Amino acid sequence: MMLAKETETAIKPEASEEVIALFQKIVGKEQVLTQEENKSDYGRDKTEDYHFMPDVVLKPATTQEVSELLKVCNKYKIPTTPRGAGTGLSGGALPVKNGVVISMERFNKIIDIDELNLQATVEPGVITEVFQNAVKAKNLFYPPDPASRGSCFLGGNLANNSGGPKAVKYGVTRDYVINLEVVLPTGEIIWTAANVLKNSTGYNLTQLMCGSEGTLGIITKIVFKLRGLPQKTVLMMIPFVTNEEACSAIAAIFTAGITPSGMEFFEKEAATKTFDYCEKVLNSPVTTKLVEGMNAYLLCELDGNDEEVLMRDAERVMGVVEKFQSGEVLFADSAAQKEELWKIRKNISPAVNWYTLTKSDDVVVPRANLPKLITGIKEIGKRYGFNTVCFGHLGDGNLHVNILKENISEERWEKDIPEGIGEIFKLTVSLGGTLSGEHGIGIAKRPYMPIALGEVNLNLMRGIKKVFDPNGILNPDKIF
Amino acid sequence: MMLAKETETAIKPEASEEVIALFQKIVGKEQVLTQEENKSDYGRDKTEDYHFMPDVVLKPATTQEVSELLKVCNKYKIPTTPRGAGTGLSGGALPVKNGVVISMERFNKIIDIDELNLQATVEPGVITEVFQNAVKAKNLFYPPDPASRGSCFLGGNLANNSGGPKAVKYGVTRDYVINLEVVLPTGEIIWTAANVLKNSTGYNLTQLMCGSEGTLGIITKIVFKLRGLPQKTVLMMIPFVTNEEACSAIAAIFTAGITPSGMEFFEKEAATKTFDYCEKVLNSPVTTKLVEGMNAYLLCELDGNDEEVLMRDAERVMGVVEKFQSGEVLFADSAAQKEELWKIRKNISPAVNWYTLTKSDDVVVPRANLPKLITGIKEIGKRYGFNTVCFGHLGDGNLHVNILKENISEERWEKDIPEGIGEIFKLTVSLGGTLSGEHGIGIAKRPYMPIALGEVNLNLMRGIKKVFDPNGILNPDKIF
Repeated sequence: MMLAKETETAIKPEASEEVIALFQKIVGKEQVLTQEENKSDYGRDKTEDYHFMPDVVLKPATTQEVSELLKVCNKYKIPTTPRGAGTGLSGGALPVKNGVVISMERFNKIIDIDELNLQATVEPGVITEVFQNAVKAKNLFYPPDPASRGSCFLGGNLANNSGGPKAVKYGVTRDYVINLEVVLPTGEIIWTAANVLKNSTGYNLTQLMCGSEGTLGIITKIVFKLRGLPQKTVLMMIPFVTNEEACSAIAAIFTAGITPSGMEFFEKEAATKTFDYCEKVLNSPVTTKLVEGMNAYLLCELDGNDEEVLMRDAERVMGVVEKFQSGEVLFADSAAQKEELWKIRKNISPAVNWYTLTKSDDVVVPRANLPKLITGIKEIGKRYGFNTVCFGHLGDGNLHVNILKENISEERWEKDIPEGIGEIFKLTVSLGGTLSGEHGIGIAKRPYMPIALGEVNLNLMRGIKKVFDPNGILNPDKIF
Repeated sequence: MMLAKETETAIKPEASEEVIALFQKIVGKEQVLTQEENKSDYGRDKTEDYHFMPDVVLKPATTQEVSELLKVCNKYKIPTTPRGAGTGLSGGALPVKNGVVISMERFNKIIDIDELNLQATVEPGVITEVFQNAVKAKNLFYPPDPASRGSCFLGGNLANNSGGPKAVKYGVTRDYVINLEVVLPTGEIIWTAANVLKNSTGYNLTQLMCGSEGTLGIITKIVFKLRGLPQKTVLMMIPFVTNEEACSAIAAIFTAGITPSGMEFFEKEAATKTFDYCEKVLNSPVTTKLVEGMNAYLLCELDGNDEEVLMRDAERVMGVVEKFQSGEVLFADSAAQKEELWKIRKNISPAVNWYTLTKSDDVVVPRANLPKLITGIKEIGKRYGFNTVCFGHLGDGNLHVNILKENISEERWEKDIPEGIGEIFKLTVSLGGTLSGEHGIGIAKRPYMPIALGEVNLNLMRGIKKVFDPNGILNPDKIF
């Protein structure tokens, strides 16, 4: 990947000293990183092997500081990339034009959990799992649950509209945010809405920010709505002879009137690689066994407050899957057993990336089109000479496809494989789907946007970007 | 209200014949209304006594026709107002600058109910209740349920992000739309997204359209997601000594971990006026009796598939409300009794408007602040010399406030009362709330927007409007 060290819009050498001095005045010297060894990590995320060196990394701690920093960046027209925890899978937080990275890591306070209104106000640098646990301690529930929840930030979840396994019943990040404090690229500070559950008061700036990948403004406070915590769960691992049978069973479960709180899919190879990774890297072997002759698995979770109702629904799920070529269902009874099944699912992505370099896709289609999608992807892989590991949130129609580098040459990896990915996207769109369900577009999917969206749509987005960011300084060259 | 008959942007007399001929060529002569007796009704909705005469009313039936009509309007810079069923309560569909009204009444087809994917594709002129019943026949559920469901259109629901009683558990219109076909003011046709449940592929144009009150484009097709239909409901009418006690009980029910599928409030006067209206106007008297000494009522509905669970939750609700000054709870056992209680709730607005002219507000606050809101509104009414009838979706914090004209003079009605309404909005915003929960801003709330939103927010909205509608032809002078 090219490292665009010199560009005409990065900090101009003649302005450099002046600008650095201004930054230091705003946030203090120790929060301005200019040494390569300190700032280099801020040029990476979890997307392939991308790296772009920022000119300077800034670590503000207050909205006012973000505002003053952005005023400087805007005045000097410095490319400015906001950054959460750097766990993104599409390169959205990478400083592709160098310039400034604004790291939100010091915005790590849970400001308020309002039990009376079932709302919480947080800063964007709070780790998702920390927040989940804080609300759980009050018997409340924040459902969005990306696999990286132990390290990712809520602000990054908002930027990409993250989902996770609970989305199938409870929705994605977008469905929980009700109000945002945002610093615009001009340094102006706004609240997008009010702390209310319903709002028909002008255009929905909150939803516009959500999923905009840090291109429209920097989020400095978030108001979420919360739910009551379901007290009980049932978790089943259901084996199938083929991927297609597993995918078909999913639509059948939903049309039977059951709404699982999790409906995850992984193919056999995802599981074997994860078993290997858990044993060799995590030193925590998986004791669950795969079933002979079975090549695809569903994790089906049901939740609620009434054990009897849950068991009745679980039996209905069993009744549905029996109609497909499926094997013996594993019921996870104990908390430890549930934990272990989720451990398999959550470690697939790290396991596959430990095994080999990957390019990861995050396509989404209407649920009933999943069998066609997965068959088509395997066929494209054969045609272009790559292997894939498929898994994901199939209850939502959201499939993660990791394309394995293995022994593919550098040249083919950079030239032919992207063409194959284009084919996957064309197939997805032809099935009524789109490029990304929860990882965002960033730089990794940007070249493919015209497959999903026409020039009129893209021009509307460019126009909106210009309204928020007239000088185009914020997270440039992302999305479109 | 002024009737801006001549404006510089309405159809210029010298272009009039030419333009009408173009319109007739596109949609056929019979779909172009120019006679006052035919077009006059299109200048009214359900907002106070507003009336604005359109120059011409157009009734297209296809996306292509809408596109061609808008190209003409855009070329000749004619103010163009899209219109659903005309049931709006903020004047959003009124042709305040005359010009063209595009009525969507012929877009009345349910194109597809996709049971496999739990999705439906519809045209915007389908009546909400017709759609609800069509999906119900397939054991599916479309929860948004505005009181005007028997006559309002789905497109209008989208324009205003309508809610209704089920929103407290199931969300508003915004939470069900996943993709829209839209004709932009330039005549260009787009789909905003894809038919998928999760989408992180660029800015969310779908959510931007929803609640934009017909100012950004004309919706010509809608893709909704659907849910499984809950099989059972329990409905209770709970009387309270004061409004404040009823409001306090609501927050307590939610913090007890119960999520009702309806949590409606009305004060005694709303009920008595409705009883009167049902008897005298609908010829369908209410048999339910109000409870002596009780001045406020909650309708609390629980839904689900398991009768036992519902009864257990109903008992928990009873346990909570006993802690407040409440009277004997009426359990509606039969379908007929449930129907009757909902009849009371749904006829409040028509009943109050039959009793006297009103100005209706639709404020929304965090749930726990409802007691302060309602006390404050009554106090403001005393200060400004007006009576109010309060009711609404209080589970969401969404209160409808009807200000009664009764024997207030015209002069005070147009001068002092709006000042009092401003006070209500200031109070709402000071309680963390905002102007409209589900009725939209239109023209009726437009003067009050600066109370809720700062100039920076309003300028962002104006900027977005200009991106979609460079000539400012579509539904001009609405919202901001």
